[in-house]
Formats: sequence, C-alpha cells, structure tokens
Amino acid sequence: MPRKYDSPCPVARTLNIIGDRWAILILRDFFLYGPRRFQDFEGSLKGITPAVLSQRLKDFESHGVIESSLYAEHPPRREYRLTKKGRELRPVLRAMKLWGERHA
Amino acid sequence: MPRKYDSPCPVARTLNIIGDRWAILILRDFFLYGPRRFQDFEGSLKGITPAVLSQRLKDFESHGVIESSLYAEHPPRREYRLTKKGRELRPVLRAMKLWGERHA
Repeated sequence: MPRKYDSPCPVARTLNIIGDRWAILILRDFFLYGPRRFQDFEGSLKGITPAVLSQRLKDFESHGVIESSLYAEHPPRREYRLTKKGRELRPVLRAMKLWGERHA
Repeated sequence: MPRKYDSPCPVARTLNIIGDRWAILILRDFFLYGPRRFQDFEGSLKGITPAVLSQRLKDFESHGVIESSLYAEHPPRREYRLTKKGRELRPVLRAMKLWGERHA
C-alpha cells in the first residue's frame, strides 16, 4: 500500500487513497464495467496478485470509495461497486485517459 | 520506478509516466511553483530521496514531460520546467485536487 502522509495538500490526500498504479487501474475497471467481483479483476488486471487486489479493495472500502455485498455465503463471495464518493473520481480517470490518448 | 506495461489502454499508458505518488507530487510542485531546481524539490517534497527524485526527473525528461537547462557549469546545475506536453497534465492534477478538497 502507498505510504500515508498527513498533509494539508488535497492532491497528497487524494494520493493517500488512489496513489498507486493498481488502485487507479481497479477504479478504471469499475468505470468501464460497473459492479465487479474479485475474480473479475483477476481476469482484467494482468499481473495483480490476489494479496494486492484484496488489500486495495479493503482500503477502498474503508475509505468509502467502494461498497460491497455478499452474493454467496458458502464460501462467502462479495460483489463490489463504487459509492457516490468513488464515482466522483471519474474526472481523474477521464483526464488521464485524454492525456494518454494524446500523448502516451 | 513504476513497472512499464504495453497496453492499448490510454489510462495505463499515462500511468507508465505518472503512475506513482512521487511523480504526481513533483508535477504538483511544477504547477504550483513553476520552473524548479533539484534542491527546490528536496525542500518541498519531504521524504523523497535524491536517487528517486533524480530518477523521476530523468524519466519525465525522457518522456518529454519536462525539459531542463544548465544554469551553472561548475558544478553542473539544471533548472527544470514543464513542456507543453507536461502542462497538459494539469487537468489530472486539478481533478485530484478537487476530489481531495471534497472527500479526502
């Protein structure tokens, strides 16, 4: 997980939540595909480990960026979706997409 | 440095260039303060190591996001500034700032 810093800077505070590559690619997949299950991400995010994916989802949920619900009890399986707070990250992703289309 | 991936996804390609916390905080400082010298960043980015700062500046320059000029020869000292391509990252930073002010 990215290190956390106390900072008055709103960019730095945002980075405490989405400040690494996998976090942003997980968000991208939510915006592209809507509600997602753990194994959906394993399919779409080549190279992510289950431990990292699990930690990012947990961190997002603790920050209120996503929420989840059980869709199976035995074994327990969750579906994850963006909250309103999470959906409001769309302009960050859109700006990255536009820049990448033009320059990267 | 963040790992590089070949990807058709423009978000992923953008992340190949700005996909870590320090890269984005370096950009933030360019937008806040304009042209900068190495030691300016050491002053404003608490916790960055000279090796990481040097690598990020080198990577940004190789990607055409910043350019530099010598302002002293003995010892050689450089001043760095955003290129047009780099300045066009402003919407990414602005979106992060707005979200952080509201949510983080």
